[in-house]
Amino acid sequence: MPDRRFDVLAIGNAIVDVIADADDGFLEREGMHKGGMRLIDEAEATRLYDAMGPAREASGGSAANTVAGLASLGLATSFIGQLADDQLGGIFAHDIRSLGVDFGTAQRDDVGATARCLILVTADAQRTMNTFLGAAQMLGANAVDPADVAAASILYLEGYLWDPADPRAAMYKAMDVARDAGTKVAFTLSDSFVVDRHRADLNRLLDEGRIDILFANQAEAESLAQTDDVEAAVTALGGKVETLVVTRSEHGALAVRGGERADVPAEPIARLVDTTGAGDLFAAGFLAGEARGLGLERSLRLGAICAAEVIQHYGARPETRLRALAGDLLD
Amino acid sequence: MPDRRFDVLAIGNAIVDVIADADDGFLEREGMHKGGMRLIDEAEATRLYDAMGPAREASGGSAANTVAGLASLGLATSFIGQLADDQLGGIFAHDIRSLGVDFGTAQRDDVGATARCLILVTADAQRTMNTFLGAAQMLGANAVDPADVAAASILYLEGYLWDPADPRAAMYKAMDVARDAGTKVAFTLSDSFVVDRHRADLNRLLDEGRIDILFANQAEAESLAQTDDVEAAVTALGGKVETLVVTRSEHGALAVRGGERADVPAEPIARLVDTTGAGDLFAAGFLAGEARGLGLERSLRLGAICAAEVIQHYGARPETRLRALAGDLLD
Repeated sequence: MPDRRFDVLAIGNAIVDVIADADDGFLEREGMHKGGMRLIDEAEATRLYDAMGPAREASGGSAANTVAGLASLGLATSFIGQLADDQLGGIFAHDIRSLGVDFGTAQRDDVGATARCLILVTADAQRTMNTFLGAAQMLGANAVDPADVAAASILYLEGYLWDPADPRAAMYKAMDVARDAGTKVAFTLSDSFVVDRHRADLNRLLDEGRIDILFANQAEAESLAQTDDVEAAVTALGGKVETLVVTRSEHGALAVRGGERADVPAEPIARLVDTTGAGDLFAAGFLAGEARGLGLERSLRLGAICAAEVIQHYGARPETRLRALAGDLLD
Repeated sequence: MPDRRFDVLAIGNAIVDVIADADDGFLEREGMHKGGMRLIDEAEATRLYDAMGPAREASGGSAANTVAGLASLGLATSFIGQLADDQLGGIFAHDIRSLGVDFGTAQRDDVGATARCLILVTADAQRTMNTFLGAAQMLGANAVDPADVAAASILYLEGYLWDPADPRAAMYKAMDVARDAGTKVAFTLSDSFVVDRHRADLNRLLDEGRIDILFANQAEAESLAQTDDVEAAVTALGGKVETLVVTRSEHGALAVRGGERADVPAEPIARLVDTTGAGDLFAAGFLAGEARGLGLERSLRLGAICAAEVIQHYGARPETRLRALAGDLLD
């Protein structure tokens, strides 16, 4: 049995979120699809930022948010993601390290600017994301230390990073190491555009047995299975992966493993403020349960509790110690 | 009658706040005085930041927060403050311009780094501030355009900036222009340490009639008047300035002008989160009332309403449109 220093090691985009309120008219004038994510280049990021209202900045990034949630739950974590050697990079590195996360990827001065996600939050708490990937997409395979991957119980991969070529190579390398080391591989589809662009590739990963735990929201699951029926998607994908987790926003979440299935409702909340990070924190709770061997239902409940915390305030990282919210679920 | 394009033109520190939760033990270990502000150098800012928990970033600066409040109340404002040509400088410039504030001070690459205030918020909502002034204290007199000062009804000066020599010269220049142009001069004492270091200078400003409106909290007023009795301080300072405003946290605020005096209680609030910006936003409300000629009591009530908004969330800038909260007070 190898030494597992980390419950979860994640590879993802290292991004600073820039969060501003906006009204529906602004989204319309900008031609944005509410609730969606689109990639933008640096010139568009500058133009859009100039058009936005006053903002607050906070570390983000999908898998990084998940790792922050896992750390808040008391799990041992490591993160790999590329930053530039600039002030926003310093903010991201500080924030993740101050959570106790092992983060060793060096900031580089040859990768442009640190990634930014311009997030517009409307009065209905929906977030619409515009991501300039910058340095994050320059993550190379040499940033992956095989010893670290082999030292993790679970390797968690962010689908957003499947799009650019260099990070994809880094993730292939990590998956190979994980298979040899007996490290479970978890993968989140991240966004329907990722599924659209890489459906064949993603199905091949599943068919080859490279993914042990697949996270998808309803739209992503339906898109990957090419059906408009969520139950049909669950049946199709559930047959291709050891563990499938499907999140359904306010309709709760479900997981299937072999012949077993569990469904949980969404946690009740006092006030919905900003849905940014809901899926990321759901994954944190579920992975914590998996790492502790709690079984599908308790892992799903942990996911729902973590997601409920993050949607009740601005920003995609927990502001409450999740270990306390988890209560005896994690004892 | 000159053309008054601006209700208020302010000169202040251009600072980005870095806000993190902390417990009392952290403040004790760091030897910090809870609720206070201290100046730190860049090396100490780096060391303290490394020791802090995850943070969120948002534009701050005392007079800049006041200007943000005035803009949110619908008043026409201008701001002068020095930024470096770095990412945090870009954040500050974006945030203040996106509020509709006229801000023309060029970011410079020869002034070090943009100022940062490391703010530790404890569970009792008290903020303890550690300020690295950086570029902000490099503000020069040539950044003050006399035509802009003459075009303002009120010139608002931040006492924090009285400490470094170059900005003090800039403020002297602005006061001279204001006197010739009939622009009222408002001054906030900012902090007891400013009063301690510059008591003779500040008393001379008052004796020479250079200040028309003086803002102080209770501790600052008592320190300037060298008494431990707030009523004695009000009597002493009220005789030396046309309008005196004294804020007293949860005990409300008072103002005196000639033989007139008004007292208002603090506004009731639902939950106290972070007191950062309370005095700055109080000044915004009061100055808005002054600019509209509403009289002492209504101006104080506007101040109390604006302060109540900002202490119910993290960060020192309003998150609600203050014009709506002000209701018929500003009609």
